[in-house]
Amino acid sequence: MTPPHEAAQLAEPSPTPNEQLQAVAELLARRRDEEAPREEEAIAREVHALIDELHPADMAYILEGLPLEDRIWVWRLVPRDRDGDILLEVSDSVRDTLLADMDNAEIVAAAQSLDADEIADLAPDLPDDVVQDIIESQDVEDRADLQQALSYPEGTVGALMDFEVVSIREDVTCEVALRYLRRYDELPRQTDSIFVVDRDDRLKGILALNRLLVTDPDVEVAGIYERDVVAFGPEDDSDDAAQSFDRYDLVCAPVVDAQRKVVGRITVDAVLEYVRDRQEAQALGKVGLREEEDIFASVWDSARNRGPWLALNLCTAFIASRVVGLFEGSIAQLAALAALMPIVAGIGGNSGNQTTTLIVRALALGQVSPANARRLLAKELCISVVNGVVWGGVLGLIAFGLYRNLALGGVMALAMLLNLIVAALAGIFIPLAMERFGRDPAVGSSVFLTFMTDSMGFFIFLGLATLFLL
Amino acid sequence: MTPPHEAAQLAEPSPTPNEQLQAVAELLARRRDEEAPREEEAIAREVHALIDELHPADMAYILEGLPLEDRIWVWRLVPRDRDGDILLEVSDSVRDTLLADMDNAEIVAAAQSLDADEIADLAPDLPDDVVQDIIESQDVEDRADLQQALSYPEGTVGALMDFEVVSIREDVTCEVALRYLRRYDELPRQTDSIFVVDRDDRLKGILALNRLLVTDPDVEVAGIYERDVVAFGPEDDSDDAAQSFDRYDLVCAPVVDAQRKVVGRITVDAVLEYVRDRQEAQALGKVGLREEEDIFASVWDSARNRGPWLALNLCTAFIASRVVGLFEGSIAQLAALAALMPIVAGIGGNSGNQTTTLIVRALALGQVSPANARRLLAKELCISVVNGVVWGGVLGLIAFGLYRNLALGGVMALAMLLNLIVAALAGIFIPLAMERFGRDPAVGSSVFLTFMTDSMGFFIFLGLATLFLL
Repeated sequence: MTPPHEAAQLAEPSPTPNEQLQAVAELLARRRDEEAPREEEAIAREVHALIDELHPADMAYILEGLPLEDRIWVWRLVPRDRDGDILLEVSDSVRDTLLADMDNAEIVAAAQSLDADEIADLAPDLPDDVVQDIIESQDVEDRADLQQALSYPEGTVGALMDFEVVSIREDVTCEVALRYLRRYDELPRQTDSIFVVDRDDRLKGILALNRLLVTDPDVEVAGIYERDVVAFGPEDDSDDAAQSFDRYDLVCAPVVDAQRKVVGRITVDAVLEYVRDRQEAQALGKVGLREEEDIFASVWDSARNRGPWLALNLCTAFIASRVVGLFEGSIAQLAALAALMPIVAGIGGNSGNQTTTLIVRALALGQVSPANARRLLAKELCISVVNGVVWGGVLGLIAFGLYRNLALGGVMALAMLLNLIVAALAGIFIPLAMERFGRDPAVGSSVFLTFMTDSMGFFIFLGLATLFLL
Repeated sequence: MTPPHEAAQLAEPSPTPNEQLQAVAELLARRRDEEAPREEEAIAREVHALIDELHPADMAYILEGLPLEDRIWVWRLVPRDRDGDILLEVSDSVRDTLLADMDNAEIVAAAQSLDADEIADLAPDLPDDVVQDIIESQDVEDRADLQQALSYPEGTVGALMDFEVVSIREDVTCEVALRYLRRYDELPRQTDSIFVVDRDDRLKGILALNRLLVTDPDVEVAGIYERDVVAFGPEDDSDDAAQSFDRYDLVCAPVVDAQRKVVGRITVDAVLEYVRDRQEAQALGKVGLREEEDIFASVWDSARNRGPWLALNLCTAFIASRVVGLFEGSIAQLAALAALMPIVAGIGGNSGNQTTTLIVRALALGQVSPANARRLLAKELCISVVNGVVWGGVLGLIAFGLYRNLALGGVMALAMLLNLIVAALAGIFIPLAMERFGRDPAVGSSVFLTFMTDSMGFFIFLGLATLFLL
């Protein structure tokens, strides 16, 4: 992985976050050097010099890459007014370790440097009384924003929204608009457009800054702003917003209430972070990890993070095992069944997971409607029959070749075909049912699917064998 | 899923892409209406009216949602100058169906409306001679851009880059800069900053438009531009660029060559699309699908798309089955082994997949260094021992409870512990090895891991049982 060049100093490239981390880690290692144990303060000064100018995201990277004790030691060197920004950037599990080192007053102080939407992002990790203290420490306007921000559940546009709205009226000239903008010391980050509103603050459209810049200053805003714009409601689904940002290449978009009043805005950096976080959460959720694990978390914490999933899998594996147990008599007579049954179950699981993955994708893209659900089902069933005939045939031949038992080959082929049909049905219905019950089908479908294809695979194969072979 | 409001018309909300799709599908259904078979032209006019003003991304959505025959019928209604933009937006598999309906001259004509970087995105799906024709149809400057764009492999910053660079020199006033910008009819989309270069076109920094807008026109650009900027090289890894965009909340960033000459720029819409595509490719790749499947693809095409993976799984399942085959004598004596062995293999697989997922994440974030690889290994081994003792104990008790066989319970517990250790080792080494050999560890690790935990789980459990029980 090549780091991005810091172009301004290509002649002498500035260190990458990883190099910065190594430099800090080396300094800290000296603290544990037996021969010169009293250098703490000198090391603190050196570390301080290294981290003083760093972007909060780079600071977060360094803290995440340090073992717990070193992490806290460095964290205490960070100037208090930078705490808030860094807390925003670190992962949840590492944030917990940093917050554990702060008392309530320090946390409230750190929150002072943050905007309402940023505080709302931190709030789930804070004790309720601290959140209350933070709310009370805000001035009236910020407090209203904060309470609003806290009111939107995760997964909604409201939770991604910020309040740094710049808006103008349509009956002014570009000259006036430009003068109005110049009254800001700095425009809010990721502002590529300003919102055009009426006197009741209701959205009429947006004026792209790019457009403003290239237009004659005497032209009225009314003549150049875009009226047909993508806007969101605070209750809208974040995934849909992310899809719109991707589809329409947005940088920032207004958020409006039911009366079209502008309540905030959503920016592409929030969307990009959301997409990346969600991607990670899905990858972790698929294997039953509730959250990303601090790589320096204790063995005990890690084992607890992973336990519930293993317990669930134990239950499903136990049931599948009891299905096999029903046929122990058959297996005792023909041990070959025990050798062949995992193949039937395994291929079924893999095939079903392919179907589920495609259905999850189609659901996310809104391609599954009642009209084509039937069509999809018919198609997947056809595919499973084709695959069942092909791979069932191959497996039947293999089983026959190994055991010189024609009936066994036939049972194997038939069981494979039937389990692939089960896999297709389960592969479609499980994600649809999860979606219906408001669960993320990308996360939990695989456990249930594997449970179905294992249990049914064993049952079909061993049942057919008991019927026809013994 | 609630669609985004089209705010400008909240009173009468404009149709969502899905509603547009339904409207088109209903019109098309009338074509097949037996009673009025000769309305083709009227329907064409109505469909045309529906799709005429649509954003290319919405048009792509509709085409993807239509069965092949209807899709081609609508595609032929699309004005030729819009073809290029729509081809860019559809998924690879649907693009193939559209391109199959166009002759070479039409494809070359469609490419005329696209920028060099956009043509390069399409090129992998086009026959070589068509790409050659397109190159020759460009004027000299565009041709150079296009050849450059075609030269960067997928996965590099060069492949995400476009050429719509706006740059100025530092020794001018903001007034002059503003006047210079006004000479554009429209600034390139997603331009939040312009690049400050020296007389050799080498990057000195960037000037944020937000900054320009709020600065007194008499101030020199030299006084307000940002010198410490994130820039990329065209050979840099796209993932790293995406990480930087996320970390530093970028909208657009310069791409420079080894001499710091500006060669292009990378914008957040390209990054967002990359992140979403990659997410999808990984989800599909994990279950062995080479590409997203057109949901209306033929059964045969779909079966072929899924075949290679099933064949691979057949091989791994066959080997695991042969491991069981080694112990058929033991199983014939004690059929309970057949019922219990899938539990040992299954829990091992799940635990190993948790480890792999965390290692893949740590690799992606650059958190795995030679120094902490050993530490991670030690930690995962400890967790596997803790889990092995806990869950092995539970399983041992269950096996004992079911079969009233103390030795069987002991073998079960020990096998579980050992297979969890195998899972931890495999869960770490497989993704590290894939990364080392330049494969995406997020995609292929799971197959190999499951193969290891299945085969070794069967071997350990049945081997121990043969040693101690029989």
